[in-house]
Amino acid sequence: MTSQTVAERHAQARKDYEAFKARGLKLDLTRGKPAPAQLELSNAILSLPGEGVYKSADGTDLRNYGGLNGLAELREIFAAALQVPAGQLVALGNSSLSIMHDTVVHALLSVLPGGEKKWAAQERIAFLAPVPGYDRHFSLCERFGIELIQVPMTGEGPDMDVVERLVAEDSGIKGIWCVPKYSNPSGISYSDDVVRRLAAMPTAAPDFRIFWDNAYAVHHLTDKPSEIADVLKLSEEAGHPDRPFVFGSTSKITFAGAGVAFVGSSQANVAWLLKNLSMATIGHDKINQLRHVQFLKDAEGLAAHMSAHAEIVRPKFDAVDRILTEQLDGTDLASWTKPEGGYFISLDVPEGCAKRVVTLAKEAGVALTPAGATHPYGDDKADRTIRVAPTFPVLSELEVAIEGLATCVRLAGYEKLDS
Amino acid sequence: MTSQTVAERHAQARKDYEAFKARGLKLDLTRGKPAPAQLELSNAILSLPGEGVYKSADGTDLRNYGGLNGLAELREIFAAALQVPAGQLVALGNSSLSIMHDTVVHALLSVLPGGEKKWAAQERIAFLAPVPGYDRHFSLCERFGIELIQVPMTGEGPDMDVVERLVAEDSGIKGIWCVPKYSNPSGISYSDDVVRRLAAMPTAAPDFRIFWDNAYAVHHLTDKPSEIADVLKLSEEAGHPDRPFVFGSTSKITFAGAGVAFVGSSQANVAWLLKNLSMATIGHDKINQLRHVQFLKDAEGLAAHMSAHAEIVRPKFDAVDRILTEQLDGTDLASWTKPEGGYFISLDVPEGCAKRVVTLAKEAGVALTPAGATHPYGDDKADRTIRVAPTFPVLSELEVAIEGLATCVRLAGYEKLDS
Repeated sequence: MTSQTVAERHAQARKDYEAFKARGLKLDLTRGKPAPAQLELSNAILSLPGEGVYKSADGTDLRNYGGLNGLAELREIFAAALQVPAGQLVALGNSSLSIMHDTVVHALLSVLPGGEKKWAAQERIAFLAPVPGYDRHFSLCERFGIELIQVPMTGEGPDMDVVERLVAEDSGIKGIWCVPKYSNPSGISYSDDVVRRLAAMPTAAPDFRIFWDNAYAVHHLTDKPSEIADVLKLSEEAGHPDRPFVFGSTSKITFAGAGVAFVGSSQANVAWLLKNLSMATIGHDKINQLRHVQFLKDAEGLAAHMSAHAEIVRPKFDAVDRILTEQLDGTDLASWTKPEGGYFISLDVPEGCAKRVVTLAKEAGVALTPAGATHPYGDDKADRTIRVAPTFPVLSELEVAIEGLATCVRLAGYEKLDS
Repeated sequence: MTSQTVAERHAQARKDYEAFKARGLKLDLTRGKPAPAQLELSNAILSLPGEGVYKSADGTDLRNYGGLNGLAELREIFAAALQVPAGQLVALGNSSLSIMHDTVVHALLSVLPGGEKKWAAQERIAFLAPVPGYDRHFSLCERFGIELIQVPMTGEGPDMDVVERLVAEDSGIKGIWCVPKYSNPSGISYSDDVVRRLAAMPTAAPDFRIFWDNAYAVHHLTDKPSEIADVLKLSEEAGHPDRPFVFGSTSKITFAGAGVAFVGSSQANVAWLLKNLSMATIGHDKINQLRHVQFLKDAEGLAAHMSAHAEIVRPKFDAVDRILTEQLDGTDLASWTKPEGGYFISLDVPEGCAKRVVTLAKEAGVALTPAGATHPYGDDKADRTIRVAPTFPVLSELEVAIEGLATCVRLAGYEKLDS
């Protein structure tokens, strides 16, 4: 491009931006929240289980205390989706983030199976953080002073050459955060080879753990659901049965605020976790677990329900791709992922421009997740990655917001080229 | 008593015991669980909030993420009962034990307001444990290696001369466990003087905390509800606003397994706790909180509901007192409390006999809480205290169980005298 072309495009982008800003909009693309239309799909739960209904299949009164590992019939429904045998799966309260947090807490304060010391008694604890990744994974580690070491993501998962080298030589590295299916925010799913290597790799730490946050296990957007390899089985086969902790929840299946979370792992890990959990609770809300059994019924019911979600979510993902293509294709200013499931799209802009784009968008009334949130300590050194969360707004508002976002990308990009 | 009288009474007790044992009963007095008849009182909750109902008074969609401090209208209902301003009260998930546990965890892993170091970074952490007390308070400390120092209970709360002396001289003492109203297991309520002294006493530790488990705040058994002094207000007035953490729940109001827990404290403590909680969850189950608002309506609704509980529970407490009086009055073998609320009766038997009573009862088909459970490390040095939990069985079975228990007390007592 000649400098004159750049200057012209810069001027045009500025003009478009001012016009967009003048509309005085107020749109929010910050968080991966289900839309009200998605929540409506589960409204039947609001009157379940029904006045006379409070017993489990085995006759237990679920209104009373007890049942630390959760309702067996609910664990059966989710066993296949989460790739954990129902007997090694625990159904909990409404937040999978809580059980991830608590698993870290318990590892800090008691020795994990296979470990030598509790993590809090060790000089330095580090986790690998594939980037871009999920800000809440990072912040819960930051809060405990757990060092986060960035590992680049590839199109099929974390860069395993880097991961293998780091964990082999550094016994302070105790964990890795993984969102293996429709990853947050890139939307990519881990290849079988990546999962195999994670399961098999030698680690210097005897108590190394994979934090396998399978948040989008059933959140497909196409008719060809992504299948990932079974990390629990592969780890067991590789001689590391206690390596993975598998997490999941119904937060984006039924109600984000009133669902059920799950954790699954080896028998030794589950026994360790339940022993620690038993000091903190006599049992989670089993009536809410019963509601979920009644509502979802079985694995087929779950799949059908997720198809209804996809009908609402897919047009939004399509709109983002369509508008970004219309506005940015051929400009060399942006690339973005085209996920086949999950809740996010990752948008890469020219180096040094992500913060500027987010600021411009904010000033024009479009709230985006802060630039850098996809990286530990909010520190995206290249200042390039923006997480787009298209699910919450209605389609018409989303389309306007993405047009505005594309305009901001053009303005920030040409500003840079023109400077 | 002559040795002959003792021998005769021993023989009679043995005969009565064998007759009781021969009945082959299976009765359970181990835990303080509400009876099914009590749970029935809240069955309307099982179909709430109703299919189209999911908004808070301020219009928030409670199905979605958010609302870390919980539903304002529910906090309003419980503010008076828990003696915490609604703005400083947080409504959580289904377990107050969890928030007690998490408060200890967060104090171990981050510096409390007014503190100098996180507890985990200190050489020695101790809590005062008034005895007899609640086993789950003790076990959650034991699990973290927090030392428990026994303090005797008097008829109006912990022995404050002992408490004041210990906390004044030992900066390792960071907390005290209190069940201030209808205490577990003695049923006594703290006098105003005890609460005032707890609030005002100088402590060597700058980050000393009162863990105020007001589990039975509204669980009255008579028409003259016990009122305790306001520990939060008194602490503030004494210049220690951050001293108390107040806990409560609806576990014994609505459903033991599907209720709502609360924590309240000073603004600084609440901000500290919410900051830490925000790393672990995006919000608790607000739909379940909404159910509780609809069901209880207001403080008057709560009081009326608790009267219905008392109608079921009071006859059980009366039966325990009546049968123990009939069987043991004048024997010098036992004394027991006569609580006006709460869930437990504390039974004292001759020194060295509590374990024997529990073993005899077990062999005769009556399961009791293990002797010693009322003391840290299960260590009741005098081997004297037995916790009786009368709520769960139906009245007719309870009566039989208490007859059996009294028989076991006579047998163990006369065995000892006769040896």
